[in-house]
Amino acid sequence: MRLLRVDLTRQRVTTETTTDELSGGRLLTAEILAREVDPGCDPLGPDNHLVLAAGPLAGWGVSDAGRLSIGAKSPLTGGIKESNAGGDVADQLANLGYRGVILAGALPVDASPTVVVIDGGDADPVRFVPAPDYRGLWLEETAARLRADFGAADFGAADFGAADFGAGYTYLAIGPAGEMLMPAAAICAGDVRGGPYRFAARGGLGAVLGSKGVKAVLIRKTKSSTRPRGAEFRAAVATYHRVLAGNPRIEVLRKYGTASTVMLVQALGGLPTRNFSQGEFTEAERLSGEALYDLITARGGEGTPTESCMATCVIQCSNVYPDAAGRRLVAPIEYETLGMCGSNLGIGDPDVVARLNRLCNELGLDTIEVGATLGVAAEAGLWAFGDAARAVALVEEIGQGTVLGRLLGQGCHTVGRTLGVRRIPTVKRQAISAYDPRAIKGTGVTYATSPMGGDHTAGLTVFAPVDHHDRQGQVALSRGTQITRAAYDALGLCVFLLGSTAAHPELITDMLSAAYDVPVAPAYLAEIGRRVIDLEREFNRRAGLTQAADRLPDFFVTEPLAPHGERWDLPEAELDRMWAD
Amino acid sequence: MRLLRVDLTRQRVTTETTTDELSGGRLLTAEILAREVDPGCDPLGPDNHLVLAAGPLAGWGVSDAGRLSIGAKSPLTGGIKESNAGGDVADQLANLGYRGVILAGALPVDASPTVVVIDGGDADPVRFVPAPDYRGLWLEETAARLRADFGAADFGAADFGAADFGAGYTYLAIGPAGEMLMPAAAICAGDVRGGPYRFAARGGLGAVLGSKGVKAVLIRKTKSSTRPRGAEFRAAVATYHRVLAGNPRIEVLRKYGTASTVMLVQALGGLPTRNFSQGEFTEAERLSGEALYDLITARGGEGTPTESCMATCVIQCSNVYPDAAGRRLVAPIEYETLGMCGSNLGIGDPDVVARLNRLCNELGLDTIEVGATLGVAAEAGLWAFGDAARAVALVEEIGQGTVLGRLLGQGCHTVGRTLGVRRIPTVKRQAISAYDPRAIKGTGVTYATSPMGGDHTAGLTVFAPVDHHDRQGQVALSRGTQITRAAYDALGLCVFLLGSTAAHPELITDMLSAAYDVPVAPAYLAEIGRRVIDLEREFNRRAGLTQAADRLPDFFVTEPLAPHGERWDLPEAELDRMWAD
Repeated sequence: MRLLRVDLTRQRVTTETTTDELSGGRLLTAEILAREVDPGCDPLGPDNHLVLAAGPLAGWGVSDAGRLSIGAKSPLTGGIKESNAGGDVADQLANLGYRGVILAGALPVDASPTVVVIDGGDADPVRFVPAPDYRGLWLEETAARLRADFGAADFGAADFGAADFGAGYTYLAIGPAGEMLMPAAAICAGDVRGGPYRFAARGGLGAVLGSKGVKAVLIRKTKSSTRPRGAEFRAAVATYHRVLAGNPRIEVLRKYGTASTVMLVQALGGLPTRNFSQGEFTEAERLSGEALYDLITARGGEGTPTESCMATCVIQCSNVYPDAAGRRLVAPIEYETLGMCGSNLGIGDPDVVARLNRLCNELGLDTIEVGATLGVAAEAGLWAFGDAARAVALVEEIGQGTVLGRLLGQGCHTVGRTLGVRRIPTVKRQAISAYDPRAIKGTGVTYATSPMGGDHTAGLTVFAPVDHHDRQGQVALSRGTQITRAAYDALGLCVFLLGSTAAHPELITDMLSAAYDVPVAPAYLAEIGRRVIDLEREFNRRAGLTQAADRLPDFFVTEPLAPHGERWDLPEAELDRMWAD
Repeated sequence: MRLLRVDLTRQRVTTETTTDELSGGRLLTAEILAREVDPGCDPLGPDNHLVLAAGPLAGWGVSDAGRLSIGAKSPLTGGIKESNAGGDVADQLANLGYRGVILAGALPVDASPTVVVIDGGDADPVRFVPAPDYRGLWLEETAARLRADFGAADFGAADFGAADFGAGYTYLAIGPAGEMLMPAAAICAGDVRGGPYRFAARGGLGAVLGSKGVKAVLIRKTKSSTRPRGAEFRAAVATYHRVLAGNPRIEVLRKYGTASTVMLVQALGGLPTRNFSQGEFTEAERLSGEALYDLITARGGEGTPTESCMATCVIQCSNVYPDAAGRRLVAPIEYETLGMCGSNLGIGDPDVVARLNRLCNELGLDTIEVGATLGVAAEAGLWAFGDAARAVALVEEIGQGTVLGRLLGQGCHTVGRTLGVRRIPTVKRQAISAYDPRAIKGTGVTYATSPMGGDHTAGLTVFAPVDHHDRQGQVALSRGTQITRAAYDALGLCVFLLGSTAAHPELITDMLSAAYDVPVAPAYLAEIGRRVIDLEREFNRRAGLTQAADRLPDFFVTEPLAPHGERWDLPEAELDRMWAD
């Protein structure tokens, strides 16, 4: 496989070839960071890398195999971070012949932001285009300008199943938050229709790209049809697609999206409400998948309850949320945003959550981190839970870069500390997500022990058929889930496959075997999952995120959670032994 | 020796006796914290301790042996912290029969601040007095109220050499900064005249006391005359005092105070100027010890160039800085404040530095951290270097607890990150002091490698007769200095003794031998110094402050320092080996 190494400091580019055909995604980001980045470095300094990595099935026309992993030392946690996004960047990198891109060093600090254009090919694979006019642009405007200036962001050119994505470029970009080096800043990935609506949201990776002086990375779109696909491969893919399409759970996700989770978590008493002070929200039904479906379909217009983020997706869990006039307000609206920017802020009006979501998207901010941040800010008295206008105004301030805005952009931990709040829902300085760990204990184990910091994507357990209030078995459940999810992240696979493939890893490994003509056993997934976590934990250990950081905040232990009265009661010794063997 | 353990959560008090008569000061704080405090705990939560520890010669009438060590896990660095102060608390604790006090747990979060009164004796040694009226009081007002309410802070009752300090109480107290849990908050110790002018300034220990719901700790004053002093002890003390008094360096400190260092550091090109962007300040002479002496003596009134902080001090390096009308403006004004709140902010007017200093004292803030914080804030454009009125207004905002004020109270690292500044002069998130490490490299080694974080008190090398620009030998110099200073801190000794006693440790160990009737060899100092550092490093390792944190910020490497063009050029491998044997 080939890696593109972009030395931003010297504006020099090299292509490297390795014999390791299978590594990709979160495994590749972990391998490169562990090998090349000093764990003690300043995450916003030139010694940090930003690594882009596709999975080994990207570009092969496999459903849900085109997620892009982005890795770096995190300015939020101080440890290693991988955050992945849909969209079509991974597929396009693969089509250009690259498994990964290493953005090393940094453009001069005071240079105007630059657009890095990856054309591929042997002669001049990368151009560095000064883009002073892009400074401070919001993301929709950024996408529109990229389209005008570079033929990028070719809205509407592609559709599910199309092998040809049209001419031009897809892109990664940051908003003002990333330019202002905020640890709550995300990286936006152009989606299959060119819109700036897919985010590698967590861990402040947008600030890392901003620290390198880069506003956007363009990746030339090419046809993937040159890749040879043998009969064995085509048969394996067909089986995989047939199993996916036959899973009834897909219908739930397609119709209601991730918002289908709202009432499940509400029923468990784990829906974060008013800065994690309660686990049930009286207005939860207004935010439910069912309510959103009805609203979206009733309003019509540009709205749709069903949309794909990648070209090759049979699930299509995304949506477009329209305003009352039917105009696109935000796309997509997801469960975690409904929880963190809805119930967690005492806000039950989905239009308000959608406005907050849109603002975060436009500024390039992680909605989870922002929701948690506004939660502690409300607890500190900076505004009142439920005050929609003030919540919107505070997120607008982040974009304006006022002192208060810049403070909010530092995320939940710093804001909570600064305002003297004691109930700060973070692990390793990163906000946890919309699953209260007292009520969904396996996910609490994940928050505590994942090398990613407080991050449900590293091992969400809420769909497992267990008693989520009972601490028994939760460590094993989290451990297995973390390993599986790390493997999926390493392969560029969407975790929503798990309902179909969790019990049948051969569906995936058969495709890998056929694609690369090497035997890949089903146990390979557990192997690489564990390998990812071991690499990341070792990086963190050297960065100073030791066992002492594998803890939830005290208030989860000391404050019982209404309505069920659950506390966080996992023994620390059990957490400490979790990765011992 | 006896320890007083105060369980604030349960308001229960116990007295513990150990056979280890010699441990005290920073050794005792390190021992207790290493044994009892989880390095992973929230430094502002009830699992942290605040430990007060006198040295083994406190209360014996020995000059400069009455510094009080205060230890805790630091909310600024996240590691172990010891900060020590003059004043008469250590002597009075010793007179009550206590070597140390452990403040464990925390009073209820929403309780009014409490005054903890240590009366000693067997029956009821500690009282907890709710003090709602003390909330938010500045420190001079706090001291006045303590005097009115408790007979504490008996201004003017004592003088150098007096065995009887008068009736009433001495005290520790915090200002609004500590109550607001700011990592820049200090703890004030009542001085020998009762004034609130001595500070355990560094590491945010004021926030730890504030997190426990305590506004002040009173310590009953008693006569020390009940302590038996044998002939051997009296002879050892007499020799020690004779050597001290005969050292000509004392005259410099007595006349010019620590401000005598200004022109030395200016000559080395290491005087931090405008956020460490230069090493020479055009107005340095106005801030020099000589200029201050002339000003103080010319203005007269309440001003004096010479004052002691402890009853038993032959050096008397302190001063009282008067305003133009001769009224006490601040006491004392010290070198580090002149550097960090003067040249580092582009301020050459000593009256302005004195006003900033007084405000910091009143609010209970570390002048080093505040000076460094305003430095990065000026670099970010929040105000202009040299704008005296704005600098004062910003420190006032800290006291007001506005959002900006609370942000500034978080210290240099958080403010620099929040405002997007790249030149942030911190190590382990703590601001370094008024010695640029590029020009005074041994002190740079100390900043990088001390378990205390960026802190010159852990091993200041500027007085050593070496080429401070030459990296050769600086690691060994810093190592030796750190060990010596740790030993002095462990014994409650003022480091200004070093000019007289560094080459003659027997002056100190002979007093210890005679006082406790045990043989104490001169090598004992190096032994306990190293023991302190090993205990602290192990605590930090478990807290996640590993070798990766033993680094200076990159800008010291990449930016040469005018006027000499020096860079930080110590090899990291040399730093990493420093404590290996």
